[in-house]
Amino acid sequence: MIQFYAPDIEQTLQLPEDEARHCIKVLRTRPGSLVEVIDGKGNRFTCRLLDDNPRHASVVIEERCAVTPAWSTHITVAVAPTKNMDRMEWLTEKLTEIGVNRIIPVLCRHSERKEIKIERLQRIAISAMKQSLKAQLPEIYPMTPLRHIVTDIDADMRFIAYCDPSIPRKLLAKEYKPGCKSVIILIGPEGDFDPEEIKESLDSGYIPVTLGDNRLRTETAALVACDTFHIINQLKS
Amino acid sequence: MIQFYAPDIEQTLQLPEDEARHCIKVLRTRPGSLVEVIDGKGNRFTCRLLDDNPRHASVVIEERCAVTPAWSTHITVAVAPTKNMDRMEWLTEKLTEIGVNRIIPVLCRHSERKEIKIERLQRIAISAMKQSLKAQLPEIYPMTPLRHIVTDIDADMRFIAYCDPSIPRKLLAKEYKPGCKSVIILIGPEGDFDPEEIKESLDSGYIPVTLGDNRLRTETAALVACDTFHIINQLKS
Repeated sequence: MIQFYAPDIEQTLQLPEDEARHCIKVLRTRPGSLVEVIDGKGNRFTCRLLDDNPRHASVVIEERCAVTPAWSTHITVAVAPTKNMDRMEWLTEKLTEIGVNRIIPVLCRHSERKEIKIERLQRIAISAMKQSLKAQLPEIYPMTPLRHIVTDIDADMRFIAYCDPSIPRKLLAKEYKPGCKSVIILIGPEGDFDPEEIKESLDSGYIPVTLGDNRLRTETAALVACDTFHIINQLKS
Repeated sequence: MIQFYAPDIEQTLQLPEDEARHCIKVLRTRPGSLVEVIDGKGNRFTCRLLDDNPRHASVVIEERCAVTPAWSTHITVAVAPTKNMDRMEWLTEKLTEIGVNRIIPVLCRHSERKEIKIERLQRIAISAMKQSLKAQLPEIYPMTPLRHIVTDIDADMRFIAYCDPSIPRKLLAKEYKPGCKSVIILIGPEGDFDPEEIKESLDSGYIPVTLGDNRLRTETAALVACDTFHIINQLKS
């Protein structure tokens, strides 16, 4: 099944230019055919193609279906972007595939990357959403200072994962409570969070965790953390 | 900490050429300095450098230490290689990082890739082992037909993950018994295992599983499966 992405399909009743081109020029879909369209907000539409305009193919919606995501916890992964953008792009694809609601690039003291262009990450997330047959696109925030995340973003459970063994941590797999409504986890850069940053997070109620005895790269840690929520949720389902 | 890889260090008392070059030419390590060397078989050596020959730097072993892996279950991931080799390389890096003992590329009926050169995957595994400070290198097998794996490779628990919903499956997270001594999981190609292949595996005692309701790419499924073993083991530790 091919899904086309049209975030405003209900208002415009048209496929955006790149999707229209793919549908008409590449796949040579003919007017009158049925196509599946997702809006990235959790809805899937069965649409009938009205014309073959490759710039803004018009459709009529025949069916609208709210797609229940495969996971029920609202998951936010806040991660210090890696120096190598390939690794961030890979992470965005994989988080979208296994299921995440929000990705926040975190600016912290030891960040290897202080700026990030999120347009390409958004394109990768759209492609992974389509490929994995989801209807919900993860929100990708612009670079956000750690302090803002700690003070402004609320969740039922809030975790910070770091490497510094001198500040006690518990195992994420044991601390996470299955089925909680919303969760956020902070993942630091290769150089780890600064002790001052860890202290601030703990002072405002974050739970200090480790992902185990393995030394993981930043992007691997972010994926393993998100996967931990899914697996613990599955165990109690 | 930088680890040099020398699989035969105890016999040769020399770093192999590429490691010697890195040690002497790039890092400009001087004779008399201490260097850490791993053999990929679970041992870490503290060695004193005797000369600065960039082709086969000689050392004397001052300390030998058996490194206990962070996981106790012997894990084999048998996976149908993806068409795109980048995805197999990425998977090899990530499996090595999170911890795996054996990676077997599986040849099956719907395989997108019928041949694979494993030399590059081995180099990637070595680099990931060094980077994640492990001392044990996963074994990487050449391409192996599914039937040989099913008949020849033994493990305490044997799983096959597939997508076909018409052949009943259980959730891997619930079926895997924490702390089992050895486990193998089979992960099929994008086009899934053939029903005949599934039947043969089940007939010889494989447990049919799903990784959840998400549609995952082959390499993502392989990583998530391996991670599931680690997380369930952690819960019972």
